[in-house]
Parts: sequence; structure tokens; C-alpha cells
Amino acid sequence: MKHVDLNSDVGESFGAYTIGADEEVLKYVTSANIACGFHAGDPLVMERTIDLAVKNSVAIGAHPGYPDLMGFGRREMKASNEEVRAYVKYQLGALSAFATAKGVKVQHVKAHGAMYNMAAVDYNIARAIAEAVSEVDREIILLALAGSEMVKAARDTGLKVAEEVFADRAYNEDGTLVHRSKQGAMIEDENSAIERVIGMVKEGKVKAITGKEIRIRADSICVHGDSPKAVAFVKRIREGLRDAGIKVTPMKEFVK
Amino acid sequence: MKHVDLNSDVGESFGAYTIGADEEVLKYVTSANIACGFHAGDPLVMERTIDLAVKNSVAIGAHPGYPDLMGFGRREMKASNEEVRAYVKYQLGALSAFATAKGVKVQHVKAHGAMYNMAAVDYNIARAIAEAVSEVDREIILLALAGSEMVKAARDTGLKVAEEVFADRAYNEDGTLVHRSKQGAMIEDENSAIERVIGMVKEGKVKAITGKEIRIRADSICVHGDSPKAVAFVKRIREGLRDAGIKVTPMKEFVK
Amino acid sequence: MKHVDLNSDVGESFGAYTIGADEEVLKYVTSANIACGFHAGDPLVMERTIDLAVKNSVAIGAHPGYPDLMGFGRREMKASNEEVRAYVKYQLGALSAFATAKGVKVQHVKAHGAMYNMAAVDYNIARAIAEAVSEVDREIILLALAGSEMVKAARDTGLKVAEEVFADRAYNEDGTLVHRSKQGAMIEDENSAIERVIGMVKEGKVKAITGKEIRIRADSICVHGDSPKAVAFVKRIREGLRDAGIKVTPMKEFVK
Amino acid sequence: MKHVDLNSDVGESFGAYTIGADEEVLKYVTSANIACGFHAGDPLVMERTIDLAVKNSVAIGAHPGYPDLMGFGRREMKASNEEVRAYVKYQLGALSAFATAKGVKVQHVKAHGAMYNMAAVDYNIARAIAEAVSEVDREIILLALAGSEMVKAARDTGLKVAEEVFADRAYNEDGTLVHRSKQGAMIEDENSAIERVIGMVKEGKVKAITGKEIRIRADSICVHGDSPKAVAFVKRIREGLRDAGIKVTPMKEFVK
Repeated sequence: MKHVDLNSDVGESFGAYTIGADEEVLKYVTSANIACGFHAGDPLVMERTIDLAVKNSVAIGAHPGYPDLMGFGRREMKASNEEVRAYVKYQLGALSAFATAKGVKVQHVKAHGAMYNMAAVDYNIARAIAEAVSEVDREIILLALAGSEMVKAARDTGLKVAEEVFADRAYNEDGTLVHRSKQGAMIEDENSAIERVIGMVKEGKVKAITGKEIRIRADSICVHGDSPKAVAFVKRIREGLRDAGIKVTPMKEFVK
Repeated sequence: MKHVDLNSDVGESFGAYTIGADEEVLKYVTSANIACGFHAGDPLVMERTIDLAVKNSVAIGAHPGYPDLMGFGRREMKASNEEVRAYVKYQLGALSAFATAKGVKVQHVKAHGAMYNMAAVDYNIARAIAEAVSEVDREIILLALAGSEMVKAARDTGLKVAEEVFADRAYNEDGTLVHRSKQGAMIEDENSAIERVIGMVKEGKVKAITGKEIRIRADSICVHGDSPKAVAFVKRIREGLRDAGIKVTPMKEFVK
Repeated sequence: MKHVDLNSDVGESFGAYTIGADEEVLKYVTSANIACGFHAGDPLVMERTIDLAVKNSVAIGAHPGYPDLMGFGRREMKASNEEVRAYVKYQLGALSAFATAKGVKVQHVKAHGAMYNMAAVDYNIARAIAEAVSEVDREIILLALAGSEMVKAARDTGLKVAEEVFADRAYNEDGTLVHRSKQGAMIEDENSAIERVIGMVKEGKVKAITGKEIRIRADSICVHGDSPKAVAFVKRIREGLRDAGIKVTPMKEFVK
Repeated sequence: MKHVDLNSDVGESFGAYTIGADEEVLKYVTSANIACGFHAGDPLVMERTIDLAVKNSVAIGAHPGYPDLMGFGRREMKASNEEVRAYVKYQLGALSAFATAKGVKVQHVKAHGAMYNMAAVDYNIARAIAEAVSEVDREIILLALAGSEMVKAARDTGLKVAEEVFADRAYNEDGTLVHRSKQGAMIEDENSAIERVIGMVKEGKVKAITGKEIRIRADSICVHGDSPKAVAFVKRIREGLRDAGIKVTPMKEFVK
């Protein structure tokens, strides 16, 4: 039987500021990427988000980013590899304390925003992230863009890796995402988006923007919980996967 | 045989900013209180400070403070108990990741600055700190002002506690520190300071500023490494303790 | 003819985080208290908020707070008077640059959250705020809680002062606000709230929570724009004032 | 008679952290680039640094940087042009408040670290900086790397510009600085460094690293005050310029 994980970014609120329909989206995903206070999130938010995830039987992941709250971690920063490694350790450790206090383990780490995008194409940054995770806990899974440098770096470091795909994004022939500024970058039609992810999970294939079929590995599907519409789509994806005979379950259940 | 721990605040540098003669003072103390990025310290500094402590066989402690880098954590903040608890968990977790990566365990937690001073006299804040530590790891020792509310809160939470004394500070009859603004608050003479700590460790007594002898428990002596003169004094204290037949060793060796 | 100003806190968004229905509330108020980046707001938000205020012919004010983004400036901090004075100058200057760039002048300064509450009862903090404003520009008005220490400090510093009242809050006999935790602290009924502000503006009187009538000066009424319901109430207050023959106009038009 | 300005970065301390021998270097320079709280500096430090500059008759400049205290503003950040423009306005405004309070005007703006380096070669970033300054005060001078995109952007914006040279750095034939990682990038010999700046000021020429003589405009010389040795060198440069018949004076005296 085929299985797949559904992951979403949560815990991005900060102080008096609220972002995301965490309570809703946590009903449908199987893995939660929780912000760790650098680009979003604060200690109280982290604690409450873990509580919420645990209540919904959602597996916990750290979602470290650059120290850029004003830019929400979305702006590239030329941090050194040593800095990236230390930032990931710090944030993973901080989240782990709340997980431990709640009696759960951190299942995975997924880099956020600019750090994710840079690590997808820069092996050295990817390696810094993988080493940070590996030095803290070799059992933690790195959640990485399918086919990216992060996948290589995780394997080289001896880390388990889950490859992630996007339901709403078009792919180039080399497996990279079509840039959002390009025509056709977003898969607007929900039915075709759901068909695509089912194909990725079951066949390991997806049609690139050029029309050519390419190979892709889909251990986890990245979904969004930033609006009621987004959450409704997550529910539909989950139902579509179930109807296609795919088991939706946390990545730790099947990623070795 | 009597034993005592020597602790000092270290790892207070931040980015391009350097504070403290960490390399020197870590030669003489047995426990290091390492800043965790809220009032001082950053991920790289934390990592390097742990390396340095491990090289010097100094035990590691987390030194959490209020999120007030501009005020170095020295300004009182009316954070809620829930916030204090979450801040301590976060910072303890962050430091633990670096300790784990280095193969060592966090021995103790000591609150910093305003958080320490407030918790010394406010049971609820003390309790929030103790609970944070206890929820993360029941084996960690709380390093607390001798005779303070922190000692009670740690005991009530089932946490091990090390009581800390100051070589260079005068005491009131109730065991609290004489406020720095008062005449005679600082013990300026190094010889008499050393005699006092020897008395505290060996007899469990110290002469209050009024002249009356009071009982005090000295598991650890707080020393400073912020100047060459301070470090020279730490060296003298250590030698004085040794000459008095007191074993200077990390608190985990004798605090049960 | 009687006149009064309507003021509201705006520009409290930060980076990816949005708070407040600024576009709506700026249609009805006459003075905007704009956050300056310490407790809320960022440079882009400040610039856009000034644009929006200018488009709506709303007068501009700086709304400085403590450097506590995580606590939204609502937590008391023991900053020194010298620090408070420097924080206010800094934030007022930052806002002034955007105002100047837009061709408008800063009309007033109103302290935010914990800084406001502390200055209302602590003359030294109030004085630090007043001096900061006075040293930067003697023409700027200090917007202060009616009858508070801030009013005295502003007068002593030679600053113009606008006294502010609250439509939705009950008053003690000494003119201070009834604490929110107390029964009857909030005026829930909108009609009675509007009647009260009309009375304050026209008669200079309001009924304290004890039933006794007290004197109060109402140069400006503080209103909220944090929800559609709040904005609808602001619209009603404005209409109620107009119907009572009171001119609603920026404080600079009548505060001397 | 020839004239030149000597500028140095000052006011880079933050809270409990001290950097730079400001008191010493301000005795010898004619213009001070004062950090504005984003990459370094805080409100109290800014206030004290302006006091110190005024006491030494040194002209005041704002030294804005990226919001990256942990990286001291030295790390490239992909901020948008709109963000850069807003960051510069904010910081310039903040510094201006302290200058106004002290009765002096801001003479110039010089971008810091990564913002300076990026603007030197990227016209759009340079333009964003120049526009920010121009919108706040058209009389302020932009202090820019000689021959760089910043010079063009300032001219295009109608801003006065002072071109800056470095005593201790080698130049490429195109007038850019030789990267620090390259052999010969630093002019180690103090005598030859002084000769070079005298040549730049008097002849408008300097020998590039290739040996070829290139044209360069030297309105201001950038010097450092981060160590006693650095300060001693500043003193020597100043004496060398005087002995060569060059008047050392704030840029506002001769930049039109």
C-alpha cells in the first residue's frame, strides 16, 4: 500500500500577531512544521502549537529560518555555513524542549523560506542544515525539496530524508519548481492538482510544464493553512488521497 | 571532606561584540552559566563557549534571561509566569542542542539578571523557572540564591538545587544580599572575602552586615570573569579554598 | 462652539503580520497614533500608514513604546528615565522622517501601552517623555490621559498638551480609569458611552463609577480600530458628536 | 588650497556592549558616521555619540545599515528597494532627532557594511538610498565610494555627494577596491598609505594594484577607530595631510 505525509507550516504567530488557521489545518495534516522564533513564532506560540499538534495526533517538526522577523525569513541572507549550522541547532533545540516537556519527540526538520530555497540549490548550505540536525539527533528526518541538494546532503550526512512535493506548483524538466513569476507556475485547478499529487505518490511521476513526464519522489506533500480556502483544499487533498487508496500518515511511519 | 562549586557567567558576547575573559575564567571555575541568546549570547557564541567549557572540563549550565538584549536582561519586565516558563524552556532547549552535539549534558540552570533577582523574592516567578526546568529534564540542578524563594520553588517542584553565595557581597540578617547602593554592600578586601567563603562552605555561617552571625548554605560560589583583575581573584579564591582543604568540583558531584 | 479630536492607534502591523483595520478607522478619526517600530510597526508600515493618514486628512502622531515587540509594548519595563527619553526621541525622529518626506508635520506624541500607563502615574517617566518631545520640537502636542502626571509634566516642560478620555471606560472619583479587572470597568452600552463623551466634551464632567460627578477635560477621545465592530462604533461616536453640535477636528486646531 | 574630510564609523556600541575608541578617534576626524540602531548603536549610544562629536566639533552623519544586529550589518540581505529606502529614512530620522535636540544638523549619510558594498555596484540600491536622503532633506550630502554607482545615484537624485577613498586599501584599474582576500589588497605600510592619500587629494590620482595610474576623487578619507593603533594612524594621516598643505575640514565646508 502506498503512503504519504501531509505537512504544513504552523506556529507562525508572534506576540500579539496572529497568522494562519492552525487549529483548522492541524485537523488534516500529519506533520507540522513549527516556526522556532527566528523568522516567526515565539516561546508561548511554540508551546501552544505543540499542544495543538499533539491533541490532533500530528507529528512535530522544527521549521528553522534566518534571524529576520521583519522579513519573515523570506529574504536571502549571506550567512556563513557555520552560522546556518548554529542557527538550525539553536532553533531545533528550542523546539525540542517544548516537545520533551509534552512527552513527544521531534520527527523532522524543514528549513523555512529563504533558507529552504537557498539550501535546495546550494549543497554547502544544505550540508550545514543536515549536519546541524545530525549532530543533535540522528533519528530526525530532514524534510527536503524532492530531488534537491538537500536530499543529497541529508544522505551524505547519514540522515533520513523525506522528499517533498507541491500540489499547487508546476515543475521544470529538471525537477525544480517553475518560478512563481512565470506563466503557468501555479496549478490553479484543484482537481488537476489532486490528480497530480496522486500520480506523484502512486507512479513517482509528474508532467513537467513542458509536457514531458519526469520522475519525482513524493514522501510528503506541502500544503497551506493560511486561509479558510486553503484549509478546505487540504481537506479535499486528504480525501482524494484516501479515495485513491493512499494512506495518509506521518512520515516517520514509512521513511527509513 | 567539604566541597564547593565555582560558577561564572560566560558566553555573553554577541555577534561582533565581545564581553568577558571567558578563556581565562574557564580555567578556574567548575560550572559555566552560558547565556542563551535572549539577554546576551548568540548561536555561534553558545557553540564556541560550550567547546571552551568542555576543553576545560567545566560543567555546562543554561543562563536564561528576559528578551532584552538592549538592557542585557538587567531590567525588570512584567512578564507573566506562563511567559517566564516558556522563555526558560526555550533557552534551555537551545543550549541543550549544542551540549548534545558536543556529547555533554546540561548540568544546571541559573536565571540571569532581573529574572534571577525577581525570582529570588517572588515565589511564582521562581516556580515558573523551576517548572520549566523540571518539565524539560528532572535531572538538571537549579542554581539559586542561598535561602531564596528559588530554593523553595525548586524543592517543591522536585528539582535538585544548589545554593549559591557571593564572595564579594555583604548579607542582611535574613540572608538576602545588602543592596549595592548601601554602604558596605561590597566586600572590597580580597582576603576577607576569601575567609568569608571558606567560613560559609565549612561552617555554613557568615557574619551579616549587622555583625550577627547567620546560617547560610554554600554549594556554589558565584565569581566574575569580566576583567583580568576579576579573573586573578577567581584564581586566588580557588587556591584559598584548596588550601583550606575544600574540594572545588562541579555541583553535580555532590548536589543530590 | 465646542470641538474635540478623535484619536486611534494605527500602523501596528509588522512585516508579514497585519493588525488593525487602519484603512477603515482612518476614515473617521482626526488624529492617528502611529507605532514607531519598537513595540509594533516597521519602516514600510510607517511609510504606508502616513500615506493613508494624509489621504484621509488625518493628523499624524508618533506612538512610541518600549522595545518589546514580543510583548507588544504592554509589559512594564524598568527602563531608566534617561532610556525612556532616548527611546521617545529615537521613535519620534524615525516617524518624523517619513512625515517630512510626505510633506506633513508630526502633530502629537502619545506614549503606548506600558509606557503610557506608567507615565500616567509616575511623574519622572512622564517628564522624560515630555522632555524628549520638547527637545525635538516644542510645537508638538503631548496627548495625555486627562488629569494625569503626563499633563503636569507636559505643562512643566512648556509643551502643549491634549487631554484624552475614553468612551468605553469607567472612571474613579480621582479621575483615574477603573481597572479592567473590576466590575463595571467597561462601558458596554454604546448609547450611554456616546452620551458620556458628549457630556465630557460639553460640560467637562462625567459620572464616576461611584455615581459622583467629577470634572474631566476632553480634548481628544481615544477610539479603537481593531475590528469592524470597533470601527462601526467610531462612526457612531463621530455622528453622535456632530449631532450634539460638537466639531470633530484635529487637536492642533484648538489646543494652544 | 586643497581640502579633505576625514570620516570614521562611531557609535557602534550597543547596550552593555562597547566597540570602538570613539573618544579618541573623534579628536582627529572631521566627520562621524553614527550607527542608527539597526546593525549597531542604540538610542542612548546615539545620544552620547552626538554629544561627543559636538564637543569635538566633528560633523554628524547617519550610518544606516540592514536590520541585522547579529551580523553587524555585514551580511548581504535581499531587501527590496522599497525596504532599503524605508530603512534609510527611518534611521536617518532617528539620528536627526538627537541632532536636533543638540542643536546641530545632520551633515551626511553613509550606508554601512553590506548595504554600502551592495549599493556601490547596484544602481537600484544606491538610488533607493539617495532617494531616501533626498526625500528627508535635500541639503544632506551622500558619502559614497569614489566612482561608484552611489555617486551616480546621488547626482541623478540631485543630492550633493562626497567621494570617499581608503588609505589602507589597494584599487583595481576600474577604481573598485581590491577584494580583501587578494594578495596586496591591504596597504600595510603606513608611510606609503599616507603618501597615497596625499596623492589622491592633491593630484586626483592613485596607482592601481596593476601599477597603472588611475583617476580618483578624494573628498573624504575613511579611517578607523577600532584600536589604539588605528587611532594613532589617524593622527598620523591628519598630520601628514597638514604637512602637505591640505586643509582637513568637514565635507560640508567644500562639497557643493
